[in-house]
Amino acid sequence: MKRFHKKHILDMASLNAEEIDHILNTASALKEISERPIKKVPTLRGKSIIHFFHEPSTRTRSSFEVAAKRMSADTFSISASTSSMTKGETLLDTVTNLQAMNPDIIVMRHSASGAPHFVAKHINASVINAGDGMHAHPTQCLLDLLTVRDAFGKIDGLKLTIIGDVFHSRVARSNIIGFTKMGADVTITGPCTMIPKGIDSLGAHVTYSLEEAFSDADIIMALRIQKERQNNFFFPSEREYATIFGLSYDRLKSINKKALIMHPGPINRGVELSSDVADSTESLILKQVANGVAIRMALIYLLMGGTRDAHSN
Amino acid sequence: MKRFHKKHILDMASLNAEEIDHILNTASALKEISERPIKKVPTLRGKSIIHFFHEPSTRTRSSFEVAAKRMSADTFSISASTSSMTKGETLLDTVTNLQAMNPDIIVMRHSASGAPHFVAKHINASVINAGDGMHAHPTQCLLDLLTVRDAFGKIDGLKLTIIGDVFHSRVARSNIIGFTKMGADVTITGPCTMIPKGIDSLGAHVTYSLEEAFSDADIIMALRIQKERQNNFFFPSEREYATIFGLSYDRLKSINKKALIMHPGPINRGVELSSDVADSTESLILKQVANGVAIRMALIYLLMGGTRDAHSN
Amino acid sequence: MKRFHKKHILDMASLNAEEIDHILNTASALKEISERPIKKVPTLRGKSIIHFFHEPSTRTRSSFEVAAKRMSADTFSISASTSSMTKGETLLDTVTNLQAMNPDIIVMRHSASGAPHFVAKHINASVINAGDGMHAHPTQCLLDLLTVRDAFGKIDGLKLTIIGDVFHSRVARSNIIGFTKMGADVTITGPCTMIPKGIDSLGAHVTYSLEEAFSDADIIMALRIQKERQNNFFFPSEREYATIFGLSYDRLKSINKKALIMHPGPINRGVELSSDVADSTESLILKQVANGVAIRMALIYLLMGGTRDAHSN
Repeated sequence: MKRFHKKHILDMASLNAEEIDHILNTASALKEISERPIKKVPTLRGKSIIHFFHEPSTRTRSSFEVAAKRMSADTFSISASTSSMTKGETLLDTVTNLQAMNPDIIVMRHSASGAPHFVAKHINASVINAGDGMHAHPTQCLLDLLTVRDAFGKIDGLKLTIIGDVFHSRVARSNIIGFTKMGADVTITGPCTMIPKGIDSLGAHVTYSLEEAFSDADIIMALRIQKERQNNFFFPSEREYATIFGLSYDRLKSINKKALIMHPGPINRGVELSSDVADSTESLILKQVANGVAIRMALIYLLMGGTRDAHSN
Repeated sequence: MKRFHKKHILDMASLNAEEIDHILNTASALKEISERPIKKVPTLRGKSIIHFFHEPSTRTRSSFEVAAKRMSADTFSISASTSSMTKGETLLDTVTNLQAMNPDIIVMRHSASGAPHFVAKHINASVINAGDGMHAHPTQCLLDLLTVRDAFGKIDGLKLTIIGDVFHSRVARSNIIGFTKMGADVTITGPCTMIPKGIDSLGAHVTYSLEEAFSDADIIMALRIQKERQNNFFFPSEREYATIFGLSYDRLKSINKKALIMHPGPINRGVELSSDVADSTESLILKQVANGVAIRMALIYLLMGGTRDAHSN
Repeated sequence: MKRFHKKHILDMASLNAEEIDHILNTASALKEISERPIKKVPTLRGKSIIHFFHEPSTRTRSSFEVAAKRMSADTFSISASTSSMTKGETLLDTVTNLQAMNPDIIVMRHSASGAPHFVAKHINASVINAGDGMHAHPTQCLLDLLTVRDAFGKIDGLKLTIIGDVFHSRVARSNIIGFTKMGADVTITGPCTMIPKGIDSLGAHVTYSLEEAFSDADIIMALRIQKERQNNFFFPSEREYATIFGLSYDRLKSINKKALIMHPGPINRGVELSSDVADSTESLILKQVANGVAIRMALIYLLMGGTRDAHSN
């Protein structure tokens, strides 16, 4: 019955392997709550969680909200468009004002890399980074780790290939760090315009040969082409991207018979993945979503001082 | 103590008279919860309901939300503008992703007719159609049936006249089917440009004589002129519509002394109804709203396996 | 164990000193709930509160929402953009429709002065004015009174100076009335274009000498320059405003060594207040925010018939 000593969840770099294991184990234990007829435990009754999303999000925000309500916490949503920041308030003033209402946790998504770290230094509440700029998305990495561990029974020694728009992807950055830390080999591939220089310093191997990237991968994770961020020209057209880097079932099977498929969603069908891959038995995509709820339940539970067994009462 | 065997509430056509009766009786029994000092029963504690509204709505969404909270269910709202569909995701992907979070019910409004039927085929959760395109709005019909049954003690044998923009109205389509099924005679009238060809095949009698439509009606239901859908010219002006088809108190009383008045709201005062009609003792409009909460409480309760007596514990 | 006999909280003019005292005492007693590990009491379980905000707001809406959830009430949010008023419905129809869903309290912010008073006349629920046009913001005044009473142990006999855009400020109007009623002396100062003629009839002393306004003030309250309302030219530029009317720490200390600083937020740093003032130990700004939650808890509690001791069970 270990205690978890982190106050904030800001990025994968600041979690060690033991802490990651602790989170994954807690999430596994909490998963069955979502399968009960009464999907709710009173564990976090009277705790207040503010969801402060300064970028649009459904999937992540809903996942956090479902997680919070399953643990009986009270939730409050503040979005970019409704926040006082539209009235010229600074980020720090917005957040210290939220702090004055005594929340226990602030879940924060922000377009500026490092914003949650800055906020965490100035407030009493715990901060969970739900995605900051192109920097980190630790809860996505944790749910991906859990999904892989569920599928293979381990993470250590597996080969993960990440393909696509690594440049814009905080998911890729967090996963390179998290999977490497847990003993996986991470390979990066994609259009050379989308693989940032120096990404190998995070521990990933970079190759522009799809054959090399795919042939012995245990898991292939396709990243989303973030159309909303393509203000520069990173590739000629979606069609060209799909032809060269998109995964179809036939193509996949011709290179690698065993690999399981992941994608952080939302999918652009026919671009990153063809539908026969997205909906195949090799696809872990919906398990990622379900594990997202479990990981977020685990995090708010652990940050509130929970020990692994306490949720059963 | 009958059980309710439907999994989804998609349209009135798929409910039989006995099922409709069952829903109305359950709603009647649940109504007093909203009149208690503590307007809440623990019946659906730990159930998750997603309100997925792909068209703007306050009235219907609020009514569902009030209903859910009175039964102690947890609710999650996803709107068109915040959903990942703005990032190019397909409807089915959005919904299977929601499903992966294990909701019990998805309440869904969508601009495409048939969207909830499509979704219901692909997910485990129950689906309630909160309005799809110009097709169906079954919960509105059920609350209208309850309101009429409250006022007259029966539905069978009553004469209902629906006046107005039948063409764009899913409320009209659902009410023609529902009221006919419960033994009422339904007459349709309005501008000939707004009465679709073949609407009589649903069981309604069509007339362009207001005298004939109104003279022996027990209930007159005025439909809303949906200004936001008038991209074609269905009538010359609101003023002309009001002059010919709008109901004033004097006009109403000159044709029919007894009829009660309904309107699905929101009212355009001075267009479909003059204020003296909308606010008259003959108006059932606010009772419709109150019954909306009761019907939605009954539906989520029955879909979750409730029997008629269980809410009293 | 007194009872509170008001049905609505519409403005400070309709509360007498004894009622204001009663509210402040109740808020003081409820404050410790927000400091407990389990920040929630079951007192208002099963009560429904609608937050009907017809103007954007984060701070006030969040504060009301936190307050409601700490008392275990159910909350429902309706905003201008989602309400049926966009479909041409009148304010009264929107509100009577909300009433038909049987809420206990409607918290209402509206751009039209007097809108909450109008609504209160027509519905059964209690109405709390969360800001109407340029008229009143009674909950802000009450939280300011509580903050001053906490800081000085009294209100009677204190000197409050309000500086800035009094013309557009419902906060200023409510505070002049509320602080005067509780025995404080209120002085108004600011650009002469922003001090409305006749404001002294509310009980405030007006001066255009900052020296006179500040020299013996116990509290200086800077109002926000509401950039979003500046469609006319009330002052040449923000920079000029800041130079003449903005408070820096040096300037403040040169005139008055003891005054405490308040601001209703959100702050335009460098305009009304420099950062060294906003973040100084003299600043009560974050205490105002925390007291906002307590005041709103007290109001919904008292309107629901609570007596001062009942929250302890």
